[in-house]
Amino acid sequence: MDTRLNNLDYAFNPRSIAFVGATETLRKWGFLILNNLITGGYEGEIYPVNPNRETVLGLRAYPSVRDIPAEVDLVIFTVPSRQVLGALDDCIAKGVKAGVVITAGFKELGEEGAELEAVLVRKGREGGMVLIGPNCQGICCPGNRLYPWMPILFYPPRGRIGYVAQSGNILNMLIGHAVNAGLGISKAVSSGNEADVKTGDYLSYLADDPDTEVIVSYIEGVNDGRSFLERVRSATRVKPVVVLKGGRTRAGVSAARSHTGAMAVSGRLFEAACRQAGAIVTYSIEEAGLTAASFVGRPLPRGRRVGIITGGGGLGVIAADFCTEMGLEVVDLSPRTLSELEKMLPDWWVPGNPVDLVAGLDFMIIKPVIEILMKSGEMDAVMFLWIGPPRRLEYKDSSDNDRGVNMSGVGKMMDQLFRDFSVGIDELVHELQVPLYVATSIRIEPPDDDGQTDRVQPLIFPSVESACRAMHAMAEYYEYRSARD
Amino acid sequence: MDTRLNNLDYAFNPRSIAFVGATETLRKWGFLILNNLITGGYEGEIYPVNPNRETVLGLRAYPSVRDIPAEVDLVIFTVPSRQVLGALDDCIAKGVKAGVVITAGFKELGEEGAELEAVLVRKGREGGMVLIGPNCQGICCPGNRLYPWMPILFYPPRGRIGYVAQSGNILNMLIGHAVNAGLGISKAVSSGNEADVKTGDYLSYLADDPDTEVIVSYIEGVNDGRSFLERVRSATRVKPVVVLKGGRTRAGVSAARSHTGAMAVSGRLFEAACRQAGAIVTYSIEEAGLTAASFVGRPLPRGRRVGIITGGGGLGVIAADFCTEMGLEVVDLSPRTLSELEKMLPDWWVPGNPVDLVAGLDFMIIKPVIEILMKSGEMDAVMFLWIGPPRRLEYKDSSDNDRGVNMSGVGKMMDQLFRDFSVGIDELVHELQVPLYVATSIRIEPPDDDGQTDRVQPLIFPSVESACRAMHAMAEYYEYRSARD
Repeated sequence: MDTRLNNLDYAFNPRSIAFVGATETLRKWGFLILNNLITGGYEGEIYPVNPNRETVLGLRAYPSVRDIPAEVDLVIFTVPSRQVLGALDDCIAKGVKAGVVITAGFKELGEEGAELEAVLVRKGREGGMVLIGPNCQGICCPGNRLYPWMPILFYPPRGRIGYVAQSGNILNMLIGHAVNAGLGISKAVSSGNEADVKTGDYLSYLADDPDTEVIVSYIEGVNDGRSFLERVRSATRVKPVVVLKGGRTRAGVSAARSHTGAMAVSGRLFEAACRQAGAIVTYSIEEAGLTAASFVGRPLPRGRRVGIITGGGGLGVIAADFCTEMGLEVVDLSPRTLSELEKMLPDWWVPGNPVDLVAGLDFMIIKPVIEILMKSGEMDAVMFLWIGPPRRLEYKDSSDNDRGVNMSGVGKMMDQLFRDFSVGIDELVHELQVPLYVATSIRIEPPDDDGQTDRVQPLIFPSVESACRAMHAMAEYYEYRSARD
Repeated sequence: MDTRLNNLDYAFNPRSIAFVGATETLRKWGFLILNNLITGGYEGEIYPVNPNRETVLGLRAYPSVRDIPAEVDLVIFTVPSRQVLGALDDCIAKGVKAGVVITAGFKELGEEGAELEAVLVRKGREGGMVLIGPNCQGICCPGNRLYPWMPILFYPPRGRIGYVAQSGNILNMLIGHAVNAGLGISKAVSSGNEADVKTGDYLSYLADDPDTEVIVSYIEGVNDGRSFLERVRSATRVKPVVVLKGGRTRAGVSAARSHTGAMAVSGRLFEAACRQAGAIVTYSIEEAGLTAASFVGRPLPRGRRVGIITGGGGLGVIAADFCTEMGLEVVDLSPRTLSELEKMLPDWWVPGNPVDLVAGLDFMIIKPVIEILMKSGEMDAVMFLWIGPPRRLEYKDSSDNDRGVNMSGVGKMMDQLFRDFSVGIDELVHELQVPLYVATSIRIEPPDDDGQTDRVQPLIFPSVESACRAMHAMAEYYEYRSARD
């Protein structure tokens, strides 16, 4: 691997940043991204570059990068494309190691832009710099409180998922699925036109990154398929790689061409090759986002046998259908396991898998039932489904009803019930090394730590389907690794 | 149709309700459901029935239904199964027209329970009562602030979607997808064992109900397939019916048998028959919930041609793929339409469908672009995609950063931009009768009216995929209706 690419470390762990295009004009990216960088809490030095201002947003500004009286690790560019080359010369003269070119107006605009982009890459390479973009939405590394990117005032917490995407919007949505579930990210990059650093390079970088436990990548096209697949193969040897391909159909490929100028790649062939290289291929943004998040803090299932515990009969039916349709096995339970369960469950329990708790509000039997299934040795994973009304609705304080009855204790009682049952379940999973997939609308708040703790609590799935899909993906990855190891 | 079934009106529009099993014991359904009924704001008379108490929750209690000194339209039963028959005799003697039997312990428990259930049905029919359940989670009709059901302190708003489900949990989740999107419900029923009133009966009732614009039904089994399909056919002649089948696989059918004691029905055959009868067949809870909600307040697309407008290139790629894979047509735009768009869009716009706005923060061009596409006559529906960071994260007030820079205006600016662009778009859709499918994470708050206004604003889709699926379902329904009319 090109040792210059080691300079990506300067992009994600910079001690100081120059911002070429810094401004206070409200709707300009030169303001909004600099604002994200400052308010995100980055603790290194920030040097705005703007020849027309003494200060920008309260920080001393400099006419050019050359004029900055200290070392600079990373430069962010938001100036118009025709000004980028000049600024790049300054960076190289200054010995800067990494740049993020937010600026659009390169290859995606046709021939003239492509020429400009070729010069950009050549200059950067000769000068020993790595360049992210151009035409990208920036990068993020919450461990360093580093948010020089477009999503406005959006600061996801630190965690274990690494992202690389050839679309900034899809990057945000992929991250959103993890963040909404209380998980965080290690490093994320919107790779844009990939003039210099390419998806394959980022995969290698994230594969080597000890803070990254799983990688997810949105890909519209790759230029060198053979080298790309080699990178995928190396990465999947050490951690899971989840792939979403944009441009699977004629209409999609045509849209991709005008988006990033990506080469047309046949979706089916590409997906088959990725799968053969050990990647997990997904088909929607939600599926990619949740599948990646499902690997964090969870042991792999060592097979496809699943035990389903459900707080509602219908959910068990839907889950049994989904698991079967996906190639998982809803195992029959042994007489011994059934009789152990019978001791726990009410008289009217109908024995079988799914195990329908039919338990009304007795949440305390959930953990012992999970334990019986995990210890039985009859299954490779346990799924627990408990989905009620949607999360968004807070319990209405019912003390204000006009019949003068004070019921406000009901909400509190339910909250306490919901909290109690989950105590100790994580320990159980890690002791027995049987993964648990919980799908619930019960609100389980992540710890409030301002995003600076690693988020390793396992994902709670928002739907039965997403839990089934995640287990299937993890079982496939286990099979791939077992065949290789 | 059995005219006795007209008595369902007494269930959904009761002037007075008796509650057999009323209690103040905190974890009992006889408390929790009565509590829901009271705190939900029902304005008719409520008569708790409990032979051991003078009052329950501040309301005068009666030893039996016979002792209530006024007319009773509806009775809710939460007493143990062996006590239901006696209470039913009282109801019949009193001339009650409708009952909801929450109580479990009937057919789902085997032979003895099935006998009890048969007696229940015979008595009810002879007495001229309709019985909902047993073994159900109750009903709801927000137009009457009627919430005698299990979901605790959950009061969805009034709206245009009718629900009938053979699983209470799945009912809640189906409703959740509409409620989370700001829509409401007309009537909902958890049909339980369907001893007396069956899914087909509810479909007929909801088909005749002027407050219901679309019906969605979760079905594990039906007893009389021919009659059921006739009901589906009649219903789909007047409004869309969305169906989700539980028990499509061997494991699913087996789970369904122990859940509601439903007859095994082959999933594939059942789904094909439903489709032939004009129903929209769906494959997940989210798909069923969102597809049903998508019909509300939206004209049908008169074909499969779609124009896609996107705030991000990657979203356009994903949407073009999905639409194509689903059998929709991402049409090529005529030179005339392209040149009209060129006048609106920046110089660096790459002409084509999807129309990538590449517009930074200029939200005001969105409406004119939608208008050009709708007026072109070149497409049957328009899709608009604008998805940023997840909704749940509020804008952090950035005035507290330690560099002393006050940025709190940024969040407000974004909020205003987001709000402005949507003004007038609804009028456009209804004037031109071209449906618009918006997928966005922009938070659009429903009007705060305590749930008593009909929610007819169209659904905002939470994902690109759900918008594509909804358009496909609506186009299929249009084709079905056109072939019939």
